Amino acid sequence: MKDISKATIDRLPLYLRTLRMAQDEGLDVISSEELGRRLEITPEQIRKDLASFGQFGKKGVGYYVNELKKSISSILGLDNHWNMAIVGIGHLGSALANHHSFISLGFNLVALFDHDPAIVGKTINHVKVEDVADLEKRVKELNIHIGIITVPGQFAQDVADRLVKAKIRGIWNFAPIRMKVPDTMHIVNEDLSIGLSGLSYHISRKF
Amino acid sequence: MKDISKATIDRLPLYLRTLRMAQDEGLDVISSEELGRRLEITPEQIRKDLASFGQFGKKGVGYYVNELKKSISSILGLDNHWNMAIVGIGHLGSALANHHSFISLGFNLVALFDHDPAIVGKTINHVKVEDVADLEKRVKELNIHIGIITVPGQFAQDVADRLVKAKIRGIWNFAPIRMKVPDTMHIVNEDLSIGLSGLSYHISRKF
Repeated sequence: MKDISKATIDRLPLYLRTLRMAQDEGLDVISSEELGRRLEITPEQIRKDLASFGQFGKKGVGYYVNELKKSISSILGLDNHWNMAIVGIGHLGSALANHHSFISLGFNLVALFDHDPAIVGKTINHVKVEDVADLEKRVKELNIHIGIITVPGQFAQDVADRLVKAKIRGIWNFAPIRMKVPDTMHIVNEDLSIGLSGLSYHISRKF
Repeated sequence: MKDISKATIDRLPLYLRTLRMAQDEGLDVISSEELGRRLEITPEQIRKDLASFGQFGKKGVGYYVNELKKSISSILGLDNHWNMAIVGIGHLGSALANHHSFISLGFNLVALFDHDPAIVGKTINHVKVEDVADLEKRVKELNIHIGIITVPGQFAQDVADRLVKAKIRGIWNFAPIRMKVPDTMHIVNEDLSIGLSGLSYHISRKF
């Protein structure tokens, strides 16, 4: 399979969610026009995206919803049912722990960590908050694949170092710093100020 | 000024944050190599990004930190000091209300709204949560420019419709739906499952 562009990969979860909704509505087949209408993406873009990794549609019929849904899940690696842990259970960590769309995508939330004795022991979304002192041990015991970092910036590099040492597979970072990790470690930096700054850029040009 | 690519616009807040840190450290001048080292972006990419909207550097010297910082702020429209409101004060809304990096970028959080009587009246980050019934009235009174939607998916379109009617300038949407808004309305959809799915895509290819 050839390399897929980041922009296409970013759209795949949107396709997946829309296909799941269509299936819930009882649709077996969906056209690129209907997918486009629901996603506000042109049908041409959708056909191009999906053509880049296989032949899913039938001309004049549309895409088979279940088949396409399974293929996109597999392309995104979601059939691996990754085990995730969140480190830092403030407001953002709690929000993510309650974010049901991750679970519906096939991710398992298996552990929560914090250092605050007032938070350790609480239960969020059926998962108990554990002491971050046990992080490395628990990553191994629970076979945690993905570490989500929601601690304040000044603690983030230390948490990342510990996750790397514990041989986590990937890091999803919400702390507002760029962390040093080995080249072999996959890290996605989620920077909320980017979306907001982009919005500012556009509305300041509008008037 | 010519159109700047989305990828470049997405990097500008990162440059801005790094320049602010450099200034706090007492640096007057910074090279593209040093910016690149701090951001894990190649110096060539940084020079290309910054060259696309003006001449900020001095060959053999580097970029003047304060000048570049002000220019990027201005390009992103951040010197407008936008007034923002958050609608939906659950975990995610609370997390955003406490997110100090927005304030440091020049955004003002002026209002919070919820429909739950148990939440209305609470104070978060010095802002009182108001009844969402007053949304349109308060958008006008407080001159709110940006509406942040953190309500559950099934209520999001209604909130968006009300913000559009109240003549908000832009919407930052965290609800997992694509909303129908007039073409003239700027909306940024923040979809947290995209980052996580991208991470899954990469780590599933690695082993």
